[in-house]
Amino acid sequence: MILPDKTIERLSQYRRNLLITLAGGKEFIFSHEIARLLHITSVQVRRDIMLIGYNGTLRRGYDVKELIELIGNIIDTEQGQNVCIMGLGNLGKAILKYLYGKRPKLRIVAAFDINTEKTGKLYSGIPVYHIDELGDKIKEHSITIGLITVPVDKAVETADHLVKSGISGILNFSSKPLNLPAHVYLEEYDMITSLEKVAYHTKRNLY
Amino acid sequence: MILPDKTIERLSQYRRNLLITLAGGKEFIFSHEIARLLHITSVQVRRDIMLIGYNGTLRRGYDVKELIELIGNIIDTEQGQNVCIMGLGNLGKAILKYLYGKRPKLRIVAAFDINTEKTGKLYSGIPVYHIDELGDKIKEHSITIGLITVPVDKAVETADHLVKSGISGILNFSSKPLNLPAHVYLEEYDMITSLEKVAYHTKRNLY
Repeated sequence: MILPDKTIERLSQYRRNLLITLAGGKEFIFSHEIARLLHITSVQVRRDIMLIGYNGTLRRGYDVKELIELIGNIIDTEQGQNVCIMGLGNLGKAILKYLYGKRPKLRIVAAFDINTEKTGKLYSGIPVYHIDELGDKIKEHSITIGLITVPVDKAVETADHLVKSGISGILNFSSKPLNLPAHVYLEEYDMITSLEKVAYHTKRNLY
Repeated sequence: MILPDKTIERLSQYRRNLLITLAGGKEFIFSHEIARLLHITSVQVRRDIMLIGYNGTLRRGYDVKELIELIGNIIDTEQGQNVCIMGLGNLGKAILKYLYGKRPKLRIVAAFDINTEKTGKLYSGIPVYHIDELGDKIKEHSITIGLITVPVDKAVETADHLVKSGISGILNFSSKPLNLPAHVYLEEYDMITSLEKVAYHTKRNLY
């Protein structure tokens, strides 16, 4: 069964909120409490969690730890997946530092750049390779996911290169929408578009 | 007239692609050419552009410069808007560097943090203030948009603080979904959720 994207998004958010809940020492949680954390309805929460085959108890609600594990079984692989960053400019560096160690089952294991002053070194503990080594290193490190943080005019060729190297999924941070073969999952994640959406709406507030 | 969010997103992408087109010396463009750049249909492009009241010519297509200006009139204010970054950790620093100077009509003019080792200084040319000064500085710099890059457990109070200080729009990079009064436009922009969506789909490819 393929879960809808919106469900996956919510499961991802449930888990992160549940991890905070657990860290706070709370072992059981009701659907209405999860709902309140995410500003959605408890009906929605119960529906999502039933969809992944879990039931809480009426008296105590959901077992937080079990629910976290169950969501992990849906999203993560047992071994975890390895991720690479394409382009180690400001954005690439930032994302590397931000994501590093955040999700143990989604490990950043390599970065790629064309600038030979950056390659052949470690950045924040991660090896930086020249883009020419992409095919070899993707195999060597069993990388399945690539994050594209190159300048907009390099996005298409970078994506093509990733696809040819056998990548399974791409998260595209560049402003250039991509067109990939169906077997490669693509998620567009363009900051400027989001910011301009905010600008459009705040502009309307201003007048 | 309020344009649909999806239209705004596409207009934002049209403009960025048109800027590249113009920089390449091309002065006119057909809808099918724009469509190809964004991997959408030319019918969609023509519909969007008609919606903002512009018509190309059959022979030469759209005037690139005029179209860029017109999209600017929709998204930007004449004076531009001022933006602040809440939280100058790895993510905040990265976003500041990435966005700095990118959109002249969306200027990052201040950053806020609680760490007094960071405040009272410039970072990449941008003043860093203590969060306690938020209300005053938002007025002083006429800031309308706030980007939330604080840790997840500080997101709610940071958003509340922004709202109380009179902000009009928020772009939330944290994993904590927010619940804001209707007069403040909110755009959620959570990297981990996007990455986990990719992971879910690539996982399915693996088996």
